[in-house]
Amino acid sequence: MTDTETLVKDMAARARGAARLLAQAGDAAKSEALKRAAAALRTRMAEIIAANGIDMEAGARSGLSAAMLDRLKLDEGRVAAVAAAVEQVATLADPVGQIIDRRTQANGLVMERVRVPVGVLGIIYESRPNVTADAAALGLRSGNAVILRGGSEAVNSNRAIHAAMVDGITAAGLPADAVQIVPTQDRAAVGAMLRAQGAIDMIIPRGGKSLVARVQDEARVPVLAHLDGICHTYIHRDADPAMAKAVVINAKMRRTGICGATETLLIDQDYAAPGELVAALLDAGCEVRADDVLMELDARAVSADADDWDTEYLDSVISARIVAGPEDAMEHITRHGSHHTDAIITSNEAVAARFLAEVDSAIVMHNASTQYADGGEFGLGAEIGIATGRLHARGPVALEGLTTYKWLVHGQGQTRP
Amino acid sequence: MTDTETLVKDMAARARGAARLLAQAGDAAKSEALKRAAAALRTRMAEIIAANGIDMEAGARSGLSAAMLDRLKLDEGRVAAVAAAVEQVATLADPVGQIIDRRTQANGLVMERVRVPVGVLGIIYESRPNVTADAAALGLRSGNAVILRGGSEAVNSNRAIHAAMVDGITAAGLPADAVQIVPTQDRAAVGAMLRAQGAIDMIIPRGGKSLVARVQDEARVPVLAHLDGICHTYIHRDADPAMAKAVVINAKMRRTGICGATETLLIDQDYAAPGELVAALLDAGCEVRADDVLMELDARAVSADADDWDTEYLDSVISARIVAGPEDAMEHITRHGSHHTDAIITSNEAVAARFLAEVDSAIVMHNASTQYADGGEFGLGAEIGIATGRLHARGPVALEGLTTYKWLVHGQGQTRP
Repeated sequence: MTDTETLVKDMAARARGAARLLAQAGDAAKSEALKRAAAALRTRMAEIIAANGIDMEAGARSGLSAAMLDRLKLDEGRVAAVAAAVEQVATLADPVGQIIDRRTQANGLVMERVRVPVGVLGIIYESRPNVTADAAALGLRSGNAVILRGGSEAVNSNRAIHAAMVDGITAAGLPADAVQIVPTQDRAAVGAMLRAQGAIDMIIPRGGKSLVARVQDEARVPVLAHLDGICHTYIHRDADPAMAKAVVINAKMRRTGICGATETLLIDQDYAAPGELVAALLDAGCEVRADDVLMELDARAVSADADDWDTEYLDSVISARIVAGPEDAMEHITRHGSHHTDAIITSNEAVAARFLAEVDSAIVMHNASTQYADGGEFGLGAEIGIATGRLHARGPVALEGLTTYKWLVHGQGQTRP
Repeated sequence: MTDTETLVKDMAARARGAARLLAQAGDAAKSEALKRAAAALRTRMAEIIAANGIDMEAGARSGLSAAMLDRLKLDEGRVAAVAAAVEQVATLADPVGQIIDRRTQANGLVMERVRVPVGVLGIIYESRPNVTADAAALGLRSGNAVILRGGSEAVNSNRAIHAAMVDGITAAGLPADAVQIVPTQDRAAVGAMLRAQGAIDMIIPRGGKSLVARVQDEARVPVLAHLDGICHTYIHRDADPAMAKAVVINAKMRRTGICGATETLLIDQDYAAPGELVAALLDAGCEVRADDVLMELDARAVSADADDWDTEYLDSVISARIVAGPEDAMEHITRHGSHHTDAIITSNEAVAARFLAEVDSAIVMHNASTQYADGGEFGLGAEIGIATGRLHARGPVALEGLTTYKWLVHGQGQTRP
């Protein structure tokens, strides 16, 4: 075992000890810890901004892009927002201890299924230092111990935020090991986390596609994530044109860089006003990569090539094509989608019901913008991420997705015949 | 890609197609398919028993143990029992389409979480041919396509049972590819299934420890299983002696070969009648491997060595020791348990509540025999297995554990601000 592997193993063992205490910690203690952590973030604001300054300077020297520097940057407003987000998680309902169901058998045994924390979470992330606080808060609120591994470009910012979180946690009488941060920048630490079966229960990567792809490829620990958000909006024949236009523009252009942004527009061949949709997107500053039919409707559209249907642009670009009908639209989504979020716009309830039933994605929408794919918008409070896998938790994952259950059996001395 | 890998990939692709149809198949069609499959098992009984005869002969020639031959054997009674089990699954409630929760947001969006099948299940099992029917039935009932890979010693029996299942499935208008059986005995097929990420959604191994260990070790596809059932029964100071004796004898000796059998007895140092428990086990024909204190109470007990606390005997053997109190008992279970099923016997409700809360096992019992660890006893109908992992499904896994969910969002044209 290398030093880094030993380090990760020791951290995971301490996390398991903390997880045992956290699993028994009440709602009040966990909530109190987060309120105190938020206060500590505010108290330590100058220190956090100074630490961030070191990261920003190093980042500028090493040639980080303006976009990356912006993701890295903390100022008073941003630290205040981080603290407020932690406070908001403190107000969310504690899922731990909820009784999912209870059944009494004829022999008098009572079987109860009760929510418990997953245990030890590994969070692997990139340049955004706010993830340090967000992930720690969601993990702690749901009774889990958390091991954080942030990007090396944010190392000082992350350590400063982590220190504030630990202040709050220990002030509430919870164990400091509840939230640990990997102290080395050795990339082997990530590999050690990914192979820590039995020691880390779940890995959640937060960052770009290359990070998520590496994690999904190497991990032996279960991963909660999505690789792509190739989201579709299908405009059915019976869509209201004003609604279709408003929803498509919002679904693509509100924020182009989020995973719920629509990347492909499918327009029914019998829809009355396809040209309007294309023109509205172009007018809004979106590049439209279109099939031959749509190309003819607006000279500003460019020709899509085969790769476009499998591309998550995360930019002001959309692929667009005509489909023969709902069947054809669903076939396109089956072939090219990423099981994230797909939407139909139609006033035809029967067609909508079929689309909702048959499209095999974590989130399927009727008459709404795919940009709603977000735990906050779903009423789940803050989300740790969106999962496109099929097991455990799917779609926006919030506190409940960070729990599992156990069975409690209450007897009076029953023996099995 | 080898021929076997191509074969498994093609089977999985056909299974995915079938899974899409099954996900939309109604309760009635799935139930009908199973009733017809049960009828086909009865119609083809002579054929199934003849196929089994070939396996039995080959097994005897190749020197299978009497126990293995017994597991392999089918006769009229056993085939009838297999058919009845399939019919019983037909009567279970269909979990698919259940609305888990629904929330309406202030903006009018309605978010619904709806149960859907997991998709494609891979079942890897050993010599019991009844698993062919059981796993196919549970998979189909919950809307999943199933790929079966049974033991080579049961190949003819499994094919005959599979043919009957397909009769029933196609007679009900469902796709034959809903239940497929790997046609080659090449062991590489198992490896190909275990590495079929994205093509097979979940692997369920059914068989002995070496099979489960291989599957857990090699699989990249998520696995639902338990490796060990090192179950504990802890006799607290405040246990009723008559109840303690009855429960311990049942927990160990009712059937020693099942995963829910107690393997270790922990007796509180303040419990009044430890010698009675040891004597009762010995009188019942159980070997007792004890610590020094218990050794002194009965000359028939033998000395436990360090390995005994980590051993699943699946036999008339139990390890037994004195513990200093609930804390010590829980520490022993934490160190040596397998997160399967652990029980406390006590009339002290506060101590029981703490034990139920703190012991981190899939099933924790108070005043009941660990032999109740079984989906049928939990009122879940037939079970596909017991899972000791922490994610997705835990404890006895029945139809619900073979489902996941998706989010449906119902809008009226909402765009995200």
